[in-house]
Amino acid sequence: MSNYQNAQSIDQPLVIAGRTFQSRLITGTGGATDLALLEQALVASGTEMTTVALRRLDPRGDGAAVYQLIEKLGLQVLPNTAACFSAREAITTAQLAREALETNWIKLEVIADEKTLLPDVVQTLEAARELVKQGFIVMAYTNDDPVVARQLEDAGVAAVMPLGAPIGTGLGVLNPHNIATIVARASVPIVLDAGLGTASDAALAMELGCSAVLLATAVNRAQHPVVMAESFRHAVIAGRLAALGGRVPKRRDALASSSLEGRAYL
Amino acid sequence: MSNYQNAQSIDQPLVIAGRTFQSRLITGTGGATDLALLEQALVASGTEMTTVALRRLDPRGDGAAVYQLIEKLGLQVLPNTAACFSAREAITTAQLAREALETNWIKLEVIADEKTLLPDVVQTLEAARELVKQGFIVMAYTNDDPVVARQLEDAGVAAVMPLGAPIGTGLGVLNPHNIATIVARASVPIVLDAGLGTASDAALAMELGCSAVLLATAVNRAQHPVVMAESFRHAVIAGRLAALGGRVPKRRDALASSSLEGRAYL
Amino acid sequence: MSNYQNAQSIDQPLVIAGRTFQSRLITGTGGATDLALLEQALVASGTEMTTVALRRLDPRGDGAAVYQLIEKLGLQVLPNTAACFSAREAITTAQLAREALETNWIKLEVIADEKTLLPDVVQTLEAARELVKQGFIVMAYTNDDPVVARQLEDAGVAAVMPLGAPIGTGLGVLNPHNIATIVARASVPIVLDAGLGTASDAALAMELGCSAVLLATAVNRAQHPVVMAESFRHAVIAGRLAALGGRVPKRRDALASSSLEGRAYL
Amino acid sequence: MSNYQNAQSIDQPLVIAGRTFQSRLITGTGGATDLALLEQALVASGTEMTTVALRRLDPRGDGAAVYQLIEKLGLQVLPNTAACFSAREAITTAQLAREALETNWIKLEVIADEKTLLPDVVQTLEAARELVKQGFIVMAYTNDDPVVARQLEDAGVAAVMPLGAPIGTGLGVLNPHNIATIVARASVPIVLDAGLGTASDAALAMELGCSAVLLATAVNRAQHPVVMAESFRHAVIAGRLAALGGRVPKRRDALASSSLEGRAYL
Repeated sequence: MSNYQNAQSIDQPLVIAGRTFQSRLITGTGGATDLALLEQALVASGTEMTTVALRRLDPRGDGAAVYQLIEKLGLQVLPNTAACFSAREAITTAQLAREALETNWIKLEVIADEKTLLPDVVQTLEAARELVKQGFIVMAYTNDDPVVARQLEDAGVAAVMPLGAPIGTGLGVLNPHNIATIVARASVPIVLDAGLGTASDAALAMELGCSAVLLATAVNRAQHPVVMAESFRHAVIAGRLAALGGRVPKRRDALASSSLEGRAYL
Repeated sequence: MSNYQNAQSIDQPLVIAGRTFQSRLITGTGGATDLALLEQALVASGTEMTTVALRRLDPRGDGAAVYQLIEKLGLQVLPNTAACFSAREAITTAQLAREALETNWIKLEVIADEKTLLPDVVQTLEAARELVKQGFIVMAYTNDDPVVARQLEDAGVAAVMPLGAPIGTGLGVLNPHNIATIVARASVPIVLDAGLGTASDAALAMELGCSAVLLATAVNRAQHPVVMAESFRHAVIAGRLAALGGRVPKRRDALASSSLEGRAYL
Repeated sequence: MSNYQNAQSIDQPLVIAGRTFQSRLITGTGGATDLALLEQALVASGTEMTTVALRRLDPRGDGAAVYQLIEKLGLQVLPNTAACFSAREAITTAQLAREALETNWIKLEVIADEKTLLPDVVQTLEAARELVKQGFIVMAYTNDDPVVARQLEDAGVAAVMPLGAPIGTGLGVLNPHNIATIVARASVPIVLDAGLGTASDAALAMELGCSAVLLATAVNRAQHPVVMAESFRHAVIAGRLAALGGRVPKRRDALASSSLEGRAYL
Repeated sequence: MSNYQNAQSIDQPLVIAGRTFQSRLITGTGGATDLALLEQALVASGTEMTTVALRRLDPRGDGAAVYQLIEKLGLQVLPNTAACFSAREAITTAQLAREALETNWIKLEVIADEKTLLPDVVQTLEAARELVKQGFIVMAYTNDDPVVARQLEDAGVAAVMPLGAPIGTGLGVLNPHNIATIVARASVPIVLDAGLGTASDAALAMELGCSAVLLATAVNRAQHPVVMAESFRHAVIAGRLAALGGRVPKRRDALASSSLEGRAYL
């Protein structure tokens, strides 16, 4: 009987570009201040994939320890093009990442300016088309515009990653209506990326139908990164199950949990 | 170093009236339509205490199977005075519950009318004072007014249980400001009771500082009660850890997760 | 044809206890720092009634100038029992106000504590019953609990005045659901009182069905009190008309303002 | 003394492309079902400029009566490119409008699809650049992305018109943070366009710093269009004055409107 289903029977693992993930939380390395702490947070989050800003962490230079940590933990590395301000810079950075890290996965970020850190969607679309042509698995960071999301999908990206709020703000999902619209029209995974601050934000993102959540600041810059990593691990599971569990409808008026008459209920 | 703390090191179990609970989720039986399903949902929720409406489920009549289930699962039974419309009715019901179930714990509910199912706080205060005098451990369901919450605490209740929204509406926490104010002034546990619909609601309640969450409809009337029970179990843990983890502050403007210059971060 | 109705044809003036008001904005004197500025703000707000805290402004002492101003402007004075912490204090203050100001109108406020300035609803109910018995026209400040609102109405008050948010916070209407529930069940005017900060707050209160709005801090402590008074005057009219005008329903999906085919529209 | 300023002294009229407007409300003709009703609504709204969809209302065909009405009322006509799905279509439509209506003002809309009616920002940017080059005064409808808003400004548009919510939804301003960010960075007028449903939405848009509001559905499809037109007229004034009036700050804790001790206030 269908309503006996439990978490194990009801869900499927996340699949991006043919690769299967048990965890729907992608934890970034950005904002981490201490390697040992980063390690504990990554483990506590349960993530299987972590992002690294290639332009900030040189695999052959002072960033080497981070890449070694990722390898030691058995995580998939997802290089990103953070700090790129044009399609051309992002494409070059992706190519460098592919060479240095031997992965054709790339989180595409093209930022418009240093003040807002918001994506430049015109440049992002251009870069996405080119990177797909060059054989990259592109996960594209973007705004929360459902039209741009669709255009990225048409460009062949493996996942669309709309923001909840500007990077580092911790404001949560500012426009749930847009995220729900993006999800309803998508045929690739939608990964909520950027702006989350706390557990309820991540749960909400999953309830809106996102396939996964990506965050970095919210863990790495929290007062207790390991605790927040555990928190988000549970939050993403909670939100995913709520999306599948068929929540009760919102009602304007109250409804007794049982009635004295009908005894329709126990 | 403090920021290495994890969930185990940072939290304390919930204590109500001297009794310790590992789980911060109290799952009610109200709204359940099927005993086997109720059993699975109770187990999946991880709860250690469950509420039963004495006026609806007669321990010596057709409600016996529910009480046997609770005993079998080793859960603490928390009888409630649902469907009582005056202090007098609630006091009588509490006394019957104590006799029938051999517990002096009572969830006090005095409802104003069948349409809104909102609490009558004047009657609730009166009943609380009397029940405390009679030696009950009173967990008092109330509105979200911080003054009433304080008055209930002054009356000697073991826990104050403000609503998030009217019973059965699934609207979530309608007034987070009030809940935060109640928590900030409380010296007994605050248990968010009623109105929650989904995981992010429960996580938010815990982030606001509640000590626990009580729900029934949101699990028992969901499309897949067992899945929602698992969801809320994770949501409450997530929210609790977020309350302890020191979330990042909300910022109006963006903040790069790392910068190219300072290299203050990894 | 009904949809040709305009503001003049569609609305009725506000009536409280048999007295008719053209303005649905009640502007208080609290927080004013300068008599000339208060005068301009009162005029700009278009109010016909203003509140004065009898315990703070002695009509025979240093408050005399304020009462003279109110008389000069032809406004109805509505004394309030601000700074009363019990039914007894409030009743005494109301009696003093009646004697000093020759009005049996009273805005009843019984505050629980100086920190939250939230109403003590138990004391408020007690005072309301007694003051009605003594022949007062009682406008009762209260929390946003629909049950308490109904109990005040049953006690015979002329208007129920739920808060939007705690006094002086400027947080707006924290729980629109409660305000709408209060309005739906009321047969006396509901006046939103306390907590408003800006024009959209006042418009929302009226859209929820409130009969009027009372505010003081939001005008008198604004940077430009006269400008904010004008703002609120328009906001209350706007909100009232919106409540009557039959707003378009909220839709999940877009709707073209006209279509190329059907030409059902111009 | 600065805090004596009133509405007349504090505000400046709206200027778009060198033309001055006393009203900050632009009311469209879309959705109107009756010419006499449209006339009354336009007058009641106080607008000085109204939009017309050239592709839907042929000035030389069955749309002639609408253009005659606009002329009779002395309103500026603002043709729009509604129902254009590419830059090319929009440019052609703008050219036809210029020829037919003898105005070089154009409200640029390039819609991505009929289902969401959301703008295609890539096509919109392309069309904006071309139309500016061709000497048009371009008011550009767009999403609420601050980066796109800036790019449109850089393209030379006379006003940027971000949506509050998708056309016809009546959902209000879904992302106030984005609108505030757009305003903070803009040097051309920001006109909130699309998605508003009621007075408080329009007041909020103005409080966020928008220079004007454009709406059509919210008036023309309301139950009583004339009443809603009056409502929005007041709402826009209210919101504008609130933006200028220096509202009280939001406070977490209560603040007495006056105190018994200090007597700093009246």
